[in-house]
Amino acid sequence: MTYCVGMLLNRGIVFMSDTRSNAGIDNISTFCKLHTWSLPGSSALTLLTSGNLATTQAVVSLLDERSKAQDRREPTLLKAESMFQAARVVANTLHEVIDERGNQGPQSEGPFAATLILGGQIKPGPSRLFMIYPEGNFIEAGPDTPFFQIGEMKYGRPILVRAYDPGMSFEDAMKLLLVSFDSTLKANLTVGAPFDFHIYETDRFEIGRTGRIELEDPYFQSVSKGWGDALRSALDSIPAFRFDA
Amino acid sequence: MTYCVGMLLNRGIVFMSDTRSNAGIDNISTFCKLHTWSLPGSSALTLLTSGNLATTQAVVSLLDERSKAQDRREPTLLKAESMFQAARVVANTLHEVIDERGNQGPQSEGPFAATLILGGQIKPGPSRLFMIYPEGNFIEAGPDTPFFQIGEMKYGRPILVRAYDPGMSFEDAMKLLLVSFDSTLKANLTVGAPFDFHIYETDRFEIGRTGRIELEDPYFQSVSKGWGDALRSALDSIPAFRFDA
Repeated sequence: MTYCVGMLLNRGIVFMSDTRSNAGIDNISTFCKLHTWSLPGSSALTLLTSGNLATTQAVVSLLDERSKAQDRREPTLLKAESMFQAARVVANTLHEVIDERGNQGPQSEGPFAATLILGGQIKPGPSRLFMIYPEGNFIEAGPDTPFFQIGEMKYGRPILVRAYDPGMSFEDAMKLLLVSFDSTLKANLTVGAPFDFHIYETDRFEIGRTGRIELEDPYFQSVSKGWGDALRSALDSIPAFRFDA
Repeated sequence: MTYCVGMLLNRGIVFMSDTRSNAGIDNISTFCKLHTWSLPGSSALTLLTSGNLATTQAVVSLLDERSKAQDRREPTLLKAESMFQAARVVANTLHEVIDERGNQGPQSEGPFAATLILGGQIKPGPSRLFMIYPEGNFIEAGPDTPFFQIGEMKYGRPILVRAYDPGMSFEDAMKLLLVSFDSTLKANLTVGAPFDFHIYETDRFEIGRTGRIELEDPYFQSVSKGWGDALRSALDSIPAFRFDA
């Protein structure tokens, strides 16, 4: 399983992903699920991946190779003229990979499906965020639905729904996401640290702050430990239930 | 879908269930999923049901009829000598119902499965809480896993994991459960108010406080509205994230 979030803010887009990949419960490993591409000055794209690892790695590798050999292969991600066109390139690549392996030869028990989050900005357009389905179609985030989650999204959703604010700072967004990831981590063994992040600041047209937060990271530990106390205090602040006499 | 919780406390057991039943997304109705049986003075049992409604209603009706005609049909729920034996009666009844309808005649698209939570106390034993699977086997709650959730349990789980305390009062448990149900309600259309509850107080051997909390209930509204603010305050109380300079 996986947990990834892409969150549209007024200031830009925050991306975070876990790094656990598992084939069964006794075969777990760490893989990066956050990938970036940029032509500094004109485009910056981030892709978060969930689903079958062979599928998502093939998608990323194809996008990579085609971006590096732009003269030989069209269309490439970095030549897309808008985020919408970039989403189409990614969606078509995903569809191509699933189609290639899904319908021939030995059949797998599980589906080769994958779901992706693509966000970023291409000059002269605005920052945009998409969720791309294994069927190759996609939806876009907007003011009503400003963030997408993929993978094991239920445990970490209530806090996002309640505390998200489009005007929040990147620091507050990181805190919110770490709380959401911590709640998921505590409930599902197939979501695991470290967590990768990328902060894309609108109109910078280059990869922004990226990093990896380990389980032992002192800040993450303080969030993880502090959140239990904070939740109990929050519950105390709600008026008491009273049984009718 | 459904959301039900049975929670073992030092003082007794708190049960809560939603009341929504749905066949598809445009065919929703309200059904009680919390059922009680008692021989005042010697036993008090509560059953929470999730899964196929025809199955759970048949189980409840069979348990009911057999309890009322104890001389004609053995074993009956109210003649069980321990909570373990009561759980066996319920589990066998569930297995019988699924078996009867599951393997003959027209085949349903969906499974007839159901998952149940049974809790209560039978003299002279202690209060005990069980989760019963469609296969007819069951597990018991204990100090390490003091509550069971059935149905759509993920959204409402993080707050239970963080704020549960075996020594909490029934009033605090009601508040905690209503927060957990509110988080679920906000995320899943197939979980719906009103919510039924039963508070069983250990060594009372009779049905305790029961009731139904409507969506418009002023207390539930105050929880639902207050919790968003409380969560944001909780988040504010966590130290800020800082990017490395």
